[in-house]
Amino acid sequence: MTAARTIIVGGVAGGMSAATRLRRLDDAREIIVIERGPHVSFANCGLPYYVGGEIEDRSALLLQTPQTLGARFGLDVRVRTEVVAIDRVARAVRVHDLATGADRTMTYDQLILSPGSVPVPPPPADEDSVPILTLRTIDDVDDIVARLDAGARRAVVAGGGFIGLEAVENLARRGIRVSLVHRGSHPFRPLDAEMAGPVIDELRRHDIDLHLADEITHVSATAVTLASGAQIETDLVIDARGTRPDTALAAAAGLALGPSGGIAVDPWQRTSDHRIFAVGDAVEKVDVVSGAPALVTMAGLANRHGRTAADVIALGTDAVDAADDATGLAILRVFDLVIATVGAGEARLRAEGRPHRVLHTHPTDHAGYFPGAERMSMKLLVGPSDDRILGAQIVGGRGVDRRIDVLSLAMQTGVSASRLSRLELAYAPPFGSAKDPVNQLGYVADNLRTGLTRAVQWHELAGVLAEGATLIDVRSPAEVAAGAIPGSTNIPLDDLRAGTTPLPDGPLVVHCQVGQRGHTAARLLAGAGRDVRNLDGGYLTWLAGRTVTEGTRS
Amino acid sequence: MTAARTIIVGGVAGGMSAATRLRRLDDAREIIVIERGPHVSFANCGLPYYVGGEIEDRSALLLQTPQTLGARFGLDVRVRTEVVAIDRVARAVRVHDLATGADRTMTYDQLILSPGSVPVPPPPADEDSVPILTLRTIDDVDDIVARLDAGARRAVVAGGGFIGLEAVENLARRGIRVSLVHRGSHPFRPLDAEMAGPVIDELRRHDIDLHLADEITHVSATAVTLASGAQIETDLVIDARGTRPDTALAAAAGLALGPSGGIAVDPWQRTSDHRIFAVGDAVEKVDVVSGAPALVTMAGLANRHGRTAADVIALGTDAVDAADDATGLAILRVFDLVIATVGAGEARLRAEGRPHRVLHTHPTDHAGYFPGAERMSMKLLVGPSDDRILGAQIVGGRGVDRRIDVLSLAMQTGVSASRLSRLELAYAPPFGSAKDPVNQLGYVADNLRTGLTRAVQWHELAGVLAEGATLIDVRSPAEVAAGAIPGSTNIPLDDLRAGTTPLPDGPLVVHCQVGQRGHTAARLLAGAGRDVRNLDGGYLTWLAGRTVTEGTRS
Repeated sequence: MTAARTIIVGGVAGGMSAATRLRRLDDAREIIVIERGPHVSFANCGLPYYVGGEIEDRSALLLQTPQTLGARFGLDVRVRTEVVAIDRVARAVRVHDLATGADRTMTYDQLILSPGSVPVPPPPADEDSVPILTLRTIDDVDDIVARLDAGARRAVVAGGGFIGLEAVENLARRGIRVSLVHRGSHPFRPLDAEMAGPVIDELRRHDIDLHLADEITHVSATAVTLASGAQIETDLVIDARGTRPDTALAAAAGLALGPSGGIAVDPWQRTSDHRIFAVGDAVEKVDVVSGAPALVTMAGLANRHGRTAADVIALGTDAVDAADDATGLAILRVFDLVIATVGAGEARLRAEGRPHRVLHTHPTDHAGYFPGAERMSMKLLVGPSDDRILGAQIVGGRGVDRRIDVLSLAMQTGVSASRLSRLELAYAPPFGSAKDPVNQLGYVADNLRTGLTRAVQWHELAGVLAEGATLIDVRSPAEVAAGAIPGSTNIPLDDLRAGTTPLPDGPLVVHCQVGQRGHTAARLLAGAGRDVRNLDGGYLTWLAGRTVTEGTRS
Repeated sequence: MTAARTIIVGGVAGGMSAATRLRRLDDAREIIVIERGPHVSFANCGLPYYVGGEIEDRSALLLQTPQTLGARFGLDVRVRTEVVAIDRVARAVRVHDLATGADRTMTYDQLILSPGSVPVPPPPADEDSVPILTLRTIDDVDDIVARLDAGARRAVVAGGGFIGLEAVENLARRGIRVSLVHRGSHPFRPLDAEMAGPVIDELRRHDIDLHLADEITHVSATAVTLASGAQIETDLVIDARGTRPDTALAAAAGLALGPSGGIAVDPWQRTSDHRIFAVGDAVEKVDVVSGAPALVTMAGLANRHGRTAADVIALGTDAVDAADDATGLAILRVFDLVIATVGAGEARLRAEGRPHRVLHTHPTDHAGYFPGAERMSMKLLVGPSDDRILGAQIVGGRGVDRRIDVLSLAMQTGVSASRLSRLELAYAPPFGSAKDPVNQLGYVADNLRTGLTRAVQWHELAGVLAEGATLIDVRSPAEVAAGAIPGSTNIPLDDLRAGTTPLPDGPLVVHCQVGQRGHTAARLLAGAGRDVRNLDGGYLTWLAGRTVTEGTRS
């Protein structure tokens, strides 16, 4: 009897996780990994940082080679080799050797597809245009670095998502003059507009030439032309406008695709043919908020699902837990700023017509009396009927990674927004606050849930004031002097309690810097029988919203 | 009708959280805060860092004053005033003014007790002994700083818990020659012995004079004498050996105390008299592992329970969620090391006779290919029958706070140890790994649960080898040259797979540096039909255990 044979298509992230796990579960099995590119198991998430020089040593990107994987795990790894067709009836794949051009057929007992994604087509370009490069493989970064070494001084990055922003940062670190062209009104689409205000500020602070709500229409030998008519002279273009799942092989084999366009799989990573598994960016996940299929392209999910496929092959579905729904947790460093999102944003919830409550806070990462505290901006989206956490966004510095992890786990375990106030989280002065930023989110959520707080959002303020409400700024005169909302009247909180300043009749909106003193003021005025609301997130959220909507910060 | 009156005994942490929350819930209520000391709402967790100079400005410790609390929250705050008796029938307290000596009686509608703790009695001392100081109040740190400014150059710290270790670090930062006298065999009792190895190393690296398994028996005008007979010349003693709940007032009033010695409260912070609430370090919590009453003295719990008491007073129990059980999450910085624990340790589980499974890992905080990755040591304790997380310990640098938060929340929400492998956690190269350290804990836990891995603990190794097992070190020759376990045979993992080196008959134990290659080796050998176990946590855990048990590191 010959050993069972598992063929894995794609030798990075999900594919390689499946291969090594399967080996540890079954030492006798034949495991063959087929990779189109020249490298397997490389650090694809690290590529931008090699361009920027933060990762100095190219070899650090190459985690394994076919040789090391053979020696350690007994894997048969073939690079520059492509699976070009699947014969499901014969349980065989046709394999094309890109070096020799030879084709051969190999049978499988199980097949795992981890083909990843393909970039969207490049923008229209002249034949002699400046190079238009992607940033997806070792070959790509070799190409980019060679051109920078050869004297390129200017770059246009198309697309302000993950890879685009990482490319911007890393090119700027090398002293390149960088322009970012992004189709949306603000970078990093998972962020809502007012949360992106600090991102825009950070990019400008590093002299990035920003072209928002714009796109490349043409690339010539010296410049790109934008839809707005702007021309940007450049030496190269990095095209990071996005990808779509690489489903060609699966579709040609008649495997079912899902509504999102990815390969459809069950919670054990099985395709519509149960001998064939699929994992990684080509595959649909289930969105934790909607329960619907969605494309979520994260390395962590790819690795986990690769492991799941191996477990199911070796142990069977009964022994393996079904995949959890995906929260889509994402984190990104942009210069000195950290951006993190999980679940759904307000824009998406609005588009889906899903009711939601919004709240903003601006806590410091650790106790304010301890040196080095850094302010972060947080946003939480909550289901009004069930207090469920629908999403969260954080922009700041130190401690953002920690809080988004807690919020992601809260979503994965069904912790309600109000219960965040009661979580036991790590506190000592260098690390946090006795009331952690996550606890504080819970306090605000609880106050909204019980009706103790009535809030006005930053984008609602103008309308509420137009309807006749009076805006009271309860900050100190020094804070007001540094910037205030037009039309506000300054009555510091302690003066408000003292009752020395007469208040106009009619509805009131109070606000402070971040929302906390505003809450105390609102409770004080409500206790006196007034119709009062608190500006959610205070002056800082209002200001960040204006950065995006008006394209400038006062 | 006069407004209801709530009297709060104790104006720090829990007491002040209750006062300000109650004001926001009810603007009309009379709220009186009685504080024995001269300060309220000070940053007690920050005190050691003011001694060390990291917090430079003394005023940063004084978060509020009676005046600011009156102006902002309409609180009647009285310092240097003590509640000396409670008349529960008359609903009145006798209040003693420490400045004037005057006594008066005040009635209450509700009473909230937040008296905190009292230190254990000082060690025996001559009348003219060097100063024996505690580190608990603003007055304490003023006293310590004055003596340091006056020329003290040597200090003995008694007690290697939270405050003791913070005192050690901060005195050393000021150039003081510090001796630490600790009764246990290793500092920070919540840590198990092998996890404390790096802590001992770190203290030695900073020239701390360590006296473990020892205690002060006498303090003279120039020196302390220890139980071991050692004498340490010193200029002052910081006594940080611990505290007990301050229950005198409650006990005298006939309120029930619990089995742990703290004031007994229900999940709404009500004492046995439902007009009287109690919060903070004087109060029993419910331990999340055992479900039994326990003393857990954390600022976060004090603040949270203060808020709960206010909520119940203003809104009633029906509107307020019952308190969650306490995980006892603790974090502490000791020089460049971060220590964090949650739940039960192995020593406690053994003492309680509670079955448990143990595992150790040594991951880096973020992807190894990205610069600046720091190794941490993790330990997880798991219920063998139900895969429940019973406790976790982490010692390392960056990222420890984040992982302990995730593990604490996992315990609070009942996430099983194996499910840790499937959590979606933040990953980008500067922040983590596609397989986060918490995911990796889950992998190991799952492999133990399913029986894929059979483990030997560091303290079991000698016994297993004595019974005839052979120890195979699968690391590289370079790693072995830097330090190896006596009696081990080096066969690098890839050579093991190649099968070039014959193996002895009989049971095998394999090990690598951290346990990961050992796992692969064990699976390989098991596949070949061998009786094999993997040394849990590898060489690093074995070495850390030896640091404590033998008092030295090879």
